[in-house]
Amino acid sequence: MNTQRVAFQGEKGAYSELATSQYFLNAEILPMKTFEEVFENIETGKVDFAIIPIENSIEGSINETYDLLLQTNMLVSGEIYLRIRHCLIANKHTNSIIDSVYSHPQALAQCRSYLKKKRLEPIPTYDTAGAVKMIKERNITNAAAIASRRAAEIYDMEILDEGIEDKNNNFTRFLVLSKTKTKPTHNDRTSIIFSINHLPGALYSILEEFAYRKINLTKIESRPTKEAPWEYNFYVDFEGHLSEENTKYALQSVKKKCAFFKILGSYKKAEFM
Amino acid sequence: MNTQRVAFQGEKGAYSELATSQYFLNAEILPMKTFEEVFENIETGKVDFAIIPIENSIEGSINETYDLLLQTNMLVSGEIYLRIRHCLIANKHTNSIIDSVYSHPQALAQCRSYLKKKRLEPIPTYDTAGAVKMIKERNITNAAAIASRRAAEIYDMEILDEGIEDKNNNFTRFLVLSKTKTKPTHNDRTSIIFSINHLPGALYSILEEFAYRKINLTKIESRPTKEAPWEYNFYVDFEGHLSEENTKYALQSVKKKCAFFKILGSYKKAEFM
Repeated sequence: MNTQRVAFQGEKGAYSELATSQYFLNAEILPMKTFEEVFENIETGKVDFAIIPIENSIEGSINETYDLLLQTNMLVSGEIYLRIRHCLIANKHTNSIIDSVYSHPQALAQCRSYLKKKRLEPIPTYDTAGAVKMIKERNITNAAAIASRRAAEIYDMEILDEGIEDKNNNFTRFLVLSKTKTKPTHNDRTSIIFSINHLPGALYSILEEFAYRKINLTKIESRPTKEAPWEYNFYVDFEGHLSEENTKYALQSVKKKCAFFKILGSYKKAEFM
Repeated sequence: MNTQRVAFQGEKGAYSELATSQYFLNAEILPMKTFEEVFENIETGKVDFAIIPIENSIEGSINETYDLLLQTNMLVSGEIYLRIRHCLIANKHTNSIIDSVYSHPQALAQCRSYLKKKRLEPIPTYDTAGAVKMIKERNITNAAAIASRRAAEIYDMEILDEGIEDKNNNFTRFLVLSKTKTKPTHNDRTSIIFSINHLPGALYSILEEFAYRKINLTKIESRPTKEAPWEYNFYVDFEGHLSEENTKYALQSVKKKCAFFKILGSYKKAEFM
């Protein structure tokens, strides 16, 4: 059997890579510079799976990946919860005073109180692990980076502090994308996208189809359509599998009431650790 | 009459400052480094009003200001729509080749196609106008900044290109915060925050109170509660004023069904230009 190829966004040591290793025991894991590249690689069949972060339990939804899901013809075939534990990472063997910290804006936001207390100036970058790589390559000694323990190990850097996130219920939810439809496990979630017309009760009338069938919604997110200001696409996750009668009937009725309707897929719910 | 004091986040020339001048004809406009400072200044009465961006028609909601609204005891007393027109701004009298561009991640995202076409590397910073100020002060000649025309004028910089945003329906919606309750104009919007219990039909049952009274919802946003993973506060905007019977009854019923409930205020809807 061929090794499965999995794409993620970021440098080696990124949280997306940790999520990938948690889900796939034995896969070739390929770092990509941008989310667009990740989607391109899965859509053209250059990789078998893609792992994308979709929301964080503290900072909320990842807008860019939500927006890319709208256009893709890939299916969501799984999800992963990863506990986020941030480290403060610096170059080894240096006595310089550290006054600033590089990292992705979400990671900086998740350590806001810590940085304030330690009087460290946050400097945004595109990546957590990429920030570690950058201060290593440029031999920056008056700044640290925020990233995973694994990023520190990969780039052979010193961990000055660990678990520096402000809240310990910090998890990121990742989606697994592929071409494969999944089989029901009776512990599944389904994700859809739709838009509605600007009428009183329009969203209510959609939710009615779920409520009436006792289908539990687990997430509702709105994103601008980008076509006209203040018009939105709704991203809804709910419990159930597309192959179940209850789900099928609900979606048939929902589809009739929508201006736009798209199914992203059904997949086994992640274990919550 | 005393001049009104208004706080905004950013450097002079920021889009928030433009929004402030559009709303207040004659006010003392005070730049603040962070949104936290803006909220602190209005809550302690050091300023009379605060202007905060809440959502952009392309990039979506501003998470940080949504989260700060949860804790504040201030009222939303107005809203502003501002057309966002980005300029590519550089130091004057330089012949260096420009290969990178500094700006706020949202501004960089809004000019993604332009930057890709021109092969300019985006570098995130905390501010649009702040990026202009920074390349001026450090006399950086191989990089430009993305910000408003006004920012270029304030810092006496050259505008290399104008209207570089990928979509021309790019608007930002700002909220006006104060201690003042507004009077109804019969063209108003009301904003509330609530959380619900994890039960099938819980959100549906809330929306029922609006649908039944033909109240039009204009926005629904979910944000993590940050207390427990995958639990959300909902931010809902709808047409109507708190002083109207219809709105009053709807909110009385909604409140009874919520785990948490908070009214942000009623305010005149902004003119859409």
